[in-house]
Order: sequence, then structure tokens, then C-alpha cells
Amino acid sequence: MTPERDSRPSAFRWPVRVYYEDTDAGGIVYYANYLKFMERARTEWLRAMGVDVNEWALRTGQGFVVRSAHLNFIKPGYLGDELLVSVEPTVQKKASVTVFQRVSNGSEALCEGEIRLAFVELKTMRPRALPEFMI
Amino acid sequence: MTPERDSRPSAFRWPVRVYYEDTDAGGIVYYANYLKFMERARTEWLRAMGVDVNEWALRTGQGFVVRSAHLNFIKPGYLGDELLVSVEPTVQKKASVTVFQRVSNGSEALCEGEIRLAFVELKTMRPRALPEFMI
Amino acid sequence: MTPERDSRPSAFRWPVRVYYEDTDAGGIVYYANYLKFMERARTEWLRAMGVDVNEWALRTGQGFVVRSAHLNFIKPGYLGDELLVSVEPTVQKKASVTVFQRVSNGSEALCEGEIRLAFVELKTMRPRALPEFMI
Amino acid sequence: MTPERDSRPSAFRWPVRVYYEDTDAGGIVYYANYLKFMERARTEWLRAMGVDVNEWALRTGQGFVVRSAHLNFIKPGYLGDELLVSVEPTVQKKASVTVFQRVSNGSEALCEGEIRLAFVELKTMRPRALPEFMI
Repeated sequence: MTPERDSRPSAFRWPVRVYYEDTDAGGIVYYANYLKFMERARTEWLRAMGVDVNEWALRTGQGFVVRSAHLNFIKPGYLGDELLVSVEPTVQKKASVTVFQRVSNGSEALCEGEIRLAFVELKTMRPRALPEFMI
Repeated sequence: MTPERDSRPSAFRWPVRVYYEDTDAGGIVYYANYLKFMERARTEWLRAMGVDVNEWALRTGQGFVVRSAHLNFIKPGYLGDELLVSVEPTVQKKASVTVFQRVSNGSEALCEGEIRLAFVELKTMRPRALPEFMI
Repeated sequence: MTPERDSRPSAFRWPVRVYYEDTDAGGIVYYANYLKFMERARTEWLRAMGVDVNEWALRTGQGFVVRSAHLNFIKPGYLGDELLVSVEPTVQKKASVTVFQRVSNGSEALCEGEIRLAFVELKTMRPRALPEFMI
Repeated sequence: MTPERDSRPSAFRWPVRVYYEDTDAGGIVYYANYLKFMERARTEWLRAMGVDVNEWALRTGQGFVVRSAHLNFIKPGYLGDELLVSVEPTVQKKASVTVFQRVSNGSEALCEGEIRLAFVELKTMRPRALPEFMI
């Protein structure tokens, strides 16, 4: 996970403001909340491709589930920060996609993660081939 | 909402420990989290009456929804505090029940609330008569 | 809390998208999260008046704390909804202000609340006169 | 991360009940909340060693920060589940410790993670040698 990784102009980015709800008594963004920020950005990344995750799930019974998340916490985020969360697909398989995500404050990376998403039949959790819009 | 209100031995009480996840950058328990603590206590209060909320909903399609919450924030809670959350029914109607709840640290009340719960058909949100175990 | 209350053009409004993090197993927005949405809107309302809550607290040692919240839960919100959260001051006293807030989906009110904010010395929690920008 | 890993009797375990607040509209435990559960267990693991994290931080200005988290999401958790969260130190260095954590429902692992904790001077975030009680 190198700093160059999402510097490509192609990486999708989504802004997130840090409110009290996101922080903890250490005065910083609570570590689990980076996973919330990353999911917001992934949802908006799919929406930017014309896909409403919820509508898709209701219509097809299929959707993404997170299989793994490898997170590095690099620097703390603070109340009031306006962060950017990137999404960049790195590995694509038949029924899953891995995305690299970075939460940054200006030029500083606060948290980086590799998130593996499996595409599944939501009722049975059985793997399904990635939909067209992902390929 | 007077201090005497849940001093009755009959009031159900449930312990809640304050972790980092519950606090904010002000160094205190984040205000919305008292609603989480109160719901935990209500769930355990029903469990103590022999009712598993989730199993009940799946079996009967009926359950409680919160209609209103009147909260007073009296004193802050802090990281590491071991709090007690009480539940005490105050008003019972045909299809709803109001409970008084207090979150305390020892003898000090931190947050008090009156929560009105309607009993409904979960799919339609139509009111239903309170189940036997509530009467 | 009538529907007309924040229909005034003067009411501040802030958009909030509903993500998975905001919902619960009932398939709807978890009730405590309306307090999060309301705080986001209050923060942005103050920012629109030129006040950064966090910077203000650090510089002056003073800030708002929530003293009470009276919430009515009217209709459920759902995953993917784009909500609007209004802020409208209703009662102003020497050291506190009450705001009426509504979370709506289009023309439908989902949750309404009256939130009383006290202005305090943050270390001692002693009341302080409202700052100029609030008057 | 094999199933045998925390089957050792020595592994610390902490129970966590799944409430509405922990679930999402998919009907399952929201993925970020496993990090909350893991932190609760780590806090109680330290408390079982006689260390109150908060009191320690206030007294010494030192404490743990999470540097990385590698999580595998294996099976979903559901509303009402009573889970067990284990903590087992795996790698110990001069200024950091890695713990393996598993969230299980009975004999089924739901989520496993390796969490690297650095011991730091909290103001400067500079590494400090692990305290005696960790060695």
C-alpha cells in the first residue's frame, strides 16, 4: 500500500466531514469509523457507475459482501476534518473484486485499506459472477 | 422525571460499561449513545420476562417501535464508567407502553428519558393490542 | 411540532444520505441515528454562520452542550434515502437556545425534535451568555 | 488464522450480545462493529490483568493505539446472538503487541482479526517500551 497507489486521476474520491459522532475520547476519529467512511465511498462509487446498491439488491437478490479488510492506521483524523476517501479496484476475479481505499486529509493519508468484496446471492451467500457494470 | 421515580425496587436494571466506541472528542459519552444503552436495557427487560424480541418478531410478525423519546441530559458519562440503565413502565395503553428510563453512575443520574413504544404489525406498522406478557 | 414549522424559507437544511451504517435489522434507520443526523445539521448551520464549533471550543473554551431532546419518530427512513435535516431556532434565552429540527424525505417528515442547547464553559459546564453570532 | 488458534484454554474471552444498534438493513451485524466488539474484549482483557486503560492513560500519558487490523469476515452474526470475543497475543515486540481475535457464535467463527497495537506516548504518538504487565 504505497502512497502512489491512488494518486491516479482515475481513482474515485468521496468527501467525508468528521463530526462528533465519528470521534472518541482520545480526541480522534474512532478506528472502526474508517470502515464506515470506506463503505460510504464504495456506495457512491457504485452510484457514479449508475448502480444503486439497495435497488439492485431488491431487484436481483444479489449484492456485495465484504470478505476481508486489511487496514493500516497511519495518522489520526480530528473533529472537523474534511477527508477524502478514494476507491480503486486492484484485483478482479470472477466473483469478487478487491479495492484499495485511502482516507486522506489533504496530502496526508490517515488510513488505507484493501477490501475484498464478494458478489453473492444474498439469501444463500453463494458466490455469483460479477455483474456487467463491474467489468 | 424526579430522582425518586426509579428508586423502586421493582425497576429493572441493566449494567453498561462505557468503551471508546461510546465516547466522543468532548471526552464524554456521545449523546445519541444513551438511546443505544436504553434499548439494550429494554431488550434485556423483555428477555427477563421470557421474551426474545427477535424470535417474537420472526414468529408473530409483531413488535415494538419507538414513537417518541424525551431525553434529559443531566451529567456527562466518561470512558470506563460502569453505568446502570433502568426500565420502568409508567403508562400503559391498549397498543402502547411508555417506559421511564434512567442511566446512572452510582447515585448520580446522567440521562433520563421517557420512551413511548407502540406495539405494531411490523410489515404494515399498524397498531396491535399489547401482548399478554406486557399486561 | 406542526408540519408548517420548518416550511419557512429561513430554515437551514442539510442533506444526509442513508448508508448501511445508519440502518438496523428492522430494515430502517436506527432510531438513535436521527440524533447524529441532527447534530451534523446543527454543526453545518453554525458553519454557515461562520462558526467552526471545534475551532471555537479550542480558542474560547466555550461551546454548546445538549440539555434535552424531545423526539417524535413519525415514519421510518430506509437505506439509500436522501434526507433533509432542518434547523430552526425557536426559543432563545440568555445562555441557551432551543432548535426545532426535522428530518424529512421529500415532503414526508420522518423524525422531528426539539433540542435544547446550553452554552457553557466546557471545563466547568457552567452556563455562559450566548455568543454574539447567535443573537 | 486457523480455527485452532484461540482454542487454547489460555485465550481470554468476553461475551457480547448483538442488539439492534449492531445490525444493519442486511439483517446482519454491520462489518465495522466487529472492531467495536474486539476493542471491548481487549479492554476487558487488560482489566483482567489489573489495568484500567483510561486510568493508565490519565496517570502515565501512555497507551495503546491500533496500527493495523487484518479482518476476515467468515459468517454473518444476527440480532440476539450471544457472541464470544477472544484475545490472544501472538507477536510481542519492544513497543508493540499483535493480538489474534476471534468473534464466535458457539463453535462457529464469524470474524477473525489480527490487530497490531503500538504502545505510545499519547501526546506525541512516539513509541514507548511495552509496560511490565504486558511482558
